[in-house]
Amino acid sequence: MTEFNSKIKTIEWVDTYSKMIDQTVIPHEFKYVNITSGEEMFAAIKTMIVRGAPAIGIAGAHGVILFAQELAKKGLSREDFVAELLKKADYMATSRPTAVNLMWAVKKQKEVIRESQKDIAGIIEELKANAIKMENEDIAINKKIGDYGAEVVPKGATILTHCNAGALATVGYGTALGVVRSAFAKDNTVQVFADETRPRQQGARITTFELTMDGIPTTLITDGMCSYFMKKGMIDMVVVGADRIAANGDTANKIGTYTVAIAAKYHNIPFYIAAPLSTIDTSIASGDEIVIEERDREEVTHINGKIICAKEVNVINPGFDVTPHELITGIITEKGILRPDYKKAISDVFNIV
Amino acid sequence: MTEFNSKIKTIEWVDTYSKMIDQTVIPHEFKYVNITSGEEMFAAIKTMIVRGAPAIGIAGAHGVILFAQELAKKGLSREDFVAELLKKADYMATSRPTAVNLMWAVKKQKEVIRESQKDIAGIIEELKANAIKMENEDIAINKKIGDYGAEVVPKGATILTHCNAGALATVGYGTALGVVRSAFAKDNTVQVFADETRPRQQGARITTFELTMDGIPTTLITDGMCSYFMKKGMIDMVVVGADRIAANGDTANKIGTYTVAIAAKYHNIPFYIAAPLSTIDTSIASGDEIVIEERDREEVTHINGKIICAKEVNVINPGFDVTPHELITGIITEKGILRPDYKKAISDVFNIV
Repeated sequence: MTEFNSKIKTIEWVDTYSKMIDQTVIPHEFKYVNITSGEEMFAAIKTMIVRGAPAIGIAGAHGVILFAQELAKKGLSREDFVAELLKKADYMATSRPTAVNLMWAVKKQKEVIRESQKDIAGIIEELKANAIKMENEDIAINKKIGDYGAEVVPKGATILTHCNAGALATVGYGTALGVVRSAFAKDNTVQVFADETRPRQQGARITTFELTMDGIPTTLITDGMCSYFMKKGMIDMVVVGADRIAANGDTANKIGTYTVAIAAKYHNIPFYIAAPLSTIDTSIASGDEIVIEERDREEVTHINGKIICAKEVNVINPGFDVTPHELITGIITEKGILRPDYKKAISDVFNIV
Repeated sequence: MTEFNSKIKTIEWVDTYSKMIDQTVIPHEFKYVNITSGEEMFAAIKTMIVRGAPAIGIAGAHGVILFAQELAKKGLSREDFVAELLKKADYMATSRPTAVNLMWAVKKQKEVIRESQKDIAGIIEELKANAIKMENEDIAINKKIGDYGAEVVPKGATILTHCNAGALATVGYGTALGVVRSAFAKDNTVQVFADETRPRQQGARITTFELTMDGIPTTLITDGMCSYFMKKGMIDMVVVGADRIAANGDTANKIGTYTVAIAAKYHNIPFYIAAPLSTIDTSIASGDEIVIEERDREEVTHINGKIICAKEVNVINPGFDVTPHELITGIITEKGILRPDYKKAISDVFNIV
C-alpha cells in the first residue's frame, strides 16, 4: 500500500488528466485513479471517488478542462467551442448540488473561458494554469485556516470532528483537520475524537486513516456518542468543515453536523466551522435556501454490500444538514476567524458595500 | 425463515431449558436457540443473543433455574444447594451491569429460593413457576404501557425511537414499541422513524424487522439525522425504552439516547421513556450512580466482520448513556405516565414513605 502522508495531493492536474486518490476504498486500499474525460469526472464526483467541498471544487475545475480537451477534437469554430464548453461547465457544476465550492470553481473556469484572448489550444492552457493555481492556493489557504484555528485550541485539547474535512477533503492539509494539524504541531498533547459519520463513514474510514498516518492520537466514536463524552468533560471543542455557508453564517455540512452542534451548545462547548472563503455563498441570505442533496437508500441500508435492516423499510437519506448560525462559535477562514454578527462579519470580509 | 409476529415469545421457559430468538442474526436469519446451562445463559446475555432490559431480566431468571438444575445433580444437602445457588444467582446478575431488570429478576428468584419450604426438586419447580409468571406478567405489563402511551400519541404522529425496545427486547409486545403498537391499533396513520443505533444497529436490524413484519410504516435513519427531521417538523414525539431509571427520573438507555433527548429538547418535541416499574432502581438517587458498561472495540471498528477504520485507532465504546430527568417529558409505566417532579412521582408509585 502506498503510504499516505499529508504532503501528498488528494487531487492534481497531470498534463492531460486529473489524478486523484480513490476515497471510496480507504482505509482498505490506497490507490490513485486517473480521470480522463468529463463524464468520468462527473461520475467521480457523484459517486464520491473525490469528496470534500474544496476537493470537489478542484475536481470541477479539472472536469471543465477534460470537456475542453474533448471539444477541441471536434473541429468546432472558436465561438462554438466556447459556447459548448460553457454549457459543459454548467453541466459539470450539477454533479453535486450542495457544496458551493464546485459552483465557485466552475465559475472561475468560466471566467477564464470568457475572458481568454487565445485560440482553442490557448484557452485549454489557460484553464490548466488556472486549475493548478487553484490547487496551490487551496493548500496555502488551508495552512492559513490551520494557523488561525490553532490559536483558539486550548492546551492539551480534545477536538471532536464530524465527517472528514482533512487533507483528503481538499488538495492537501485540510480545513478542520488543518486546524488539528497546526494545533498538534504546536502542542503534541492535542488529540481528536472522530465521529464515524454514517452513512458513508468518512469519519471512520478517512479521518482515522489520515490522522493516525500523521501520528495524531485519534479516538473513533459512533455518531450517537458525542453527548456522552461532552457531558463527561472529555471534549473541549468541535471543529468541522462546511459545504456551503450562507450570508448569515448558516452552514451546510455533512448530515449529523447539526446534531453535534446542538449537543455542543447544550454542554457549552465551542463549535467552530473551518472553511475557505470560497465556501461562503453571499448570494443566499440564509441556510433555508441551501439545496440538500438526497442520496441513494443503499447508503443507509447496506454496509460493505450487506443489508443491515429489513428489506421493506422506507429510507430518507439527506446528505447534508444546516447548522444555524446561532450554534456556531466562529467560522475559521484564511482571513481570520469570523465571529457573530456573521452577516456583518461576512459582509466585511467580502467588502460588500 | 420462520415468520416473526408479535404473538411470538422472544424468550420462554420450556420444560428444562430456555428457548430464545437469536437476536444477533436478525434480520438475516430468524432462529431460536435453546440455552441449557447457566454458563451458556451468562454468555447469551453477555454476547447479546438475548438483549433488551426486560428480556434479559427473564433470561437471568431462567439462568438461575439452569444453575439450579445443574446443582441438583451434585448430591448436595438442601442447605448447601441453597447456599451454592444463591452464589450462582449473584454471578448470573453480573452478566451485564447496566440494565437493572436483570438484578431485579434474579432478586425475585433469590426470594423464591430463600422462602421455599420445599425440597431441592420443589425449589426448582417453584423457580420455574416464578419465571413463567414473570414472562406472562411482562406481556401484560407491556400492553398496559402501550395503552397508557397511546393516549399521548397525537393523531397521525410520526414517532422517533432509538435502539429496540420492542417485542424482541421483552417477552412480547414491547415497551416503546408497545406504545407504537397500541397507537397504531387505534390509528393506522401513525408511523415510526427508527434510528440505526450504532454500534450494534438494533434499530436497523431489529426495530425495522419487527415493525415491518407488523405492517407499521417505518423509516430507517442514521443516528446523526434525528435533528434534521425534527427541524423539518417531521417528528412529533420520541419514545424509547430504558435500562435503568434512578429515583429522580434520570434514565440509562442505549448509547445515543441522550443525544436524541437533547435534540428533542432543542426542537420542543416531547421525549418519553416507556418502561416497566421493574426498570426503576429506587436505591440510587440519580443517574450519576448508574454503572455504564464498556463494550468491545470491535463493535465500533467492525461491521459484519469487516474493519471500517484505521487499525491503529483508539476506541471507547460505552454501551449506554444517561438522559437527565429534565429532558424527559414523561415515563410511561404499567401504572400510568409519571410526570415531573419524578422524585415525587416515583416515590408515590412505589408507596415509599
